[in-house]
Amino acid sequence: MARIAYVNGRYVSIDTPAVAIEDRGYQFADGIYEVCKVVRGRFCDLERHLDRLERSLDAMGMPMPMSRRALALVMEETWRRNALPDAVIYLQVSRGTAPRNHAFGASMRPSLVVTVRAAKFPSGAELEKGVGVISLPDERWANCHIKSISLLPNILAKQQAAKAGCREAWLLDEQGRVTEGSSSNAWIVDGEGRLVTRPLGREILGGITRSVVIELAKRDGIEVVERAFTLEEAKAAREAFLTSTTSLVLPVTAIDGTPVANGHPGSVTRRLAELYAEAEGMATAA
Amino acid sequence: MARIAYVNGRYVSIDTPAVAIEDRGYQFADGIYEVCKVVRGRFCDLERHLDRLERSLDAMGMPMPMSRRALALVMEETWRRNALPDAVIYLQVSRGTAPRNHAFGASMRPSLVVTVRAAKFPSGAELEKGVGVISLPDERWANCHIKSISLLPNILAKQQAAKAGCREAWLLDEQGRVTEGSSSNAWIVDGEGRLVTRPLGREILGGITRSVVIELAKRDGIEVVERAFTLEEAKAAREAFLTSTTSLVLPVTAIDGTPVANGHPGSVTRRLAELYAEAEGMATAA
Repeated sequence: MARIAYVNGRYVSIDTPAVAIEDRGYQFADGIYEVCKVVRGRFCDLERHLDRLERSLDAMGMPMPMSRRALALVMEETWRRNALPDAVIYLQVSRGTAPRNHAFGASMRPSLVVTVRAAKFPSGAELEKGVGVISLPDERWANCHIKSISLLPNILAKQQAAKAGCREAWLLDEQGRVTEGSSSNAWIVDGEGRLVTRPLGREILGGITRSVVIELAKRDGIEVVERAFTLEEAKAAREAFLTSTTSLVLPVTAIDGTPVANGHPGSVTRRLAELYAEAEGMATAA
Repeated sequence: MARIAYVNGRYVSIDTPAVAIEDRGYQFADGIYEVCKVVRGRFCDLERHLDRLERSLDAMGMPMPMSRRALALVMEETWRRNALPDAVIYLQVSRGTAPRNHAFGASMRPSLVVTVRAAKFPSGAELEKGVGVISLPDERWANCHIKSISLLPNILAKQQAAKAGCREAWLLDEQGRVTEGSSSNAWIVDGEGRLVTRPLGREILGGITRSVVIELAKRDGIEVVERAFTLEEAKAAREAFLTSTTSLVLPVTAIDGTPVANGHPGSVTRRLAELYAEAEGMATAA
C-alpha cells in the first residue's frame, strides 16, 4: 500500500510531488519539525511534542499552521489512513511559499506536511548489546534548541557515524564536552551511579524522551545531574546511553571504539529502558 | 505570464507543486544552490558559478545532477521560456528523494530545480546614496564555504536587517571581526586606499562577484589585502561596500546607524561599481 501524506489540506500518496517549488522550507530550510511515535494505536507524549512545536515556531516568529486540536486531528487522520498501529509520525511546518527572497513578509501562510511510516525501533540485539558512537566536533549553528529543518550538519555527522559502523555521532563543543548526538540526547552514569546529561540551553535540543527519562529516573530514586560532561569522562563512565523518540533508551557500549566500562549495557540504563518502555506502553517492544 | 520552472526533467508553471515530499532538500536542507544573472540575454560568469557548484557538491559528497553542458542548456532553456532579457537564475540541487532517514545511501539520484525571475538590481538611488547595514553575531555553522540551502541563520539575520530598515546584516565572529553579510561579501577601503576583505576560508562563501572584483581592482592598480577586519575598523573606514551577484557593488554608507566617513559612497567604491558594471555588460544598468 502506498503511504499517504497530508500536504496543505490534501491527503496524497507519498510519491506525489506535492511541495511548492518556492516553499521556503525547500529553498531556505525555513521550517520546524516534530517526530512522534504511535505505539499500539496510542500517540505517545503528543502534548509535549505540540508544546515544543509551539516553542520552536515562536522562536522563529512563525504562527501555528492551525489550532493544536486541528493539528492533532490531522496527525491522527494521516496515521489512520496509513493503517500502521506502530508508527512514526513526521510533521513539518515551513514559513510558507513566496518568490525567493531572504527576508520574509509578516503574514505568510505556513505550509504543513505530515507523513507516517512504520516504526523501526531498536532491535532486541541492539538493546541487548548496545551500540557504538563516534565523536565529532559540533559544527552546528548557535541555536540548536530550535527544532528546525536546517539539518545539514546533523545529517553529515550521522553519515560519518554510519560510515564508521556506528549508530550515532556525539558532538563536542570547543571545550571537548559532549553537546548531544546528531539526532538524540547523550547521557552517562557516573561513578556514584548518578545520571548525567547536559542541561537545556541553546547548544542542545530539549528531547521529549530526555524530559520523560529525567522524570522517570527521579521517581525511581535515581539522582539526575544536569551538567556538561567531557568525551574523556564519557569514555571512563560506568554506563552511557542515548535517547530519542525513535531510539528510545539505547545503551552506548563503545565510544570511538573504546568500550564503555565492560562493554555491556549497565544496570541503570537497563532499568531506565524498562521504565521508559512501560511509560510509553511498549513494554514488550524490546 | 506564469513563471516557468524546471523540475527534474519537466518544465512546469512555478505554481505547480512539483517537489517530492521526501526530497532531502525539503526535510534536511541537504542541498546546494547557485544564483546567477543574465544581463541583456547573456549569462554572467556562468563558468565560475558552475565551478563553485561542483566544489560545493563535492564537499557534500554529491554528484553533479547532469553534465556541465547539459546543466547550462537546462538553465538557458528555462531562462528562454521565461522571456526575460534581464533575469536571475536560481538553481538548486538536492541529494535526492528517499524515506526520511538522517544517513543516506551512496547512489541517490539528485533532484534539480531551476527557476527564473526578473532581475531586480539595486536602484539608482541605492547606488547613489548607499545602503545601511547592521551588525549581528555570526551564528551560522562551521562550513559556510559550502553554498548549501541550510540558510536558516542567514534568513533570520536578513530579516533583522530588514526590520531595522537596513539592506544587510554584517556577521561578526567571536573576535568581533566581520565574516560576511547574510547573502553578500563585506569590504572596506582603509586609510591608505587599500581594498580589504576577509580571505577565503570556512567562515565565508567565496562570492563570484568577490572574485571578479578582486581581479578588476588589481588590474586597475588598486591594492587588495585579504585579511579579516573588525566592526570598529569598518565603522572608521574611508569607504565600505558589499558585493553579490544581484547586489552588484553596493556602497555601504552606514553601519549600525553610524555613517561611514562622510556618509556618502567613496571614490574607490564608485570606481569598482563602474568597472564591475562594464565587466558584466550592464554599464548603464544603474
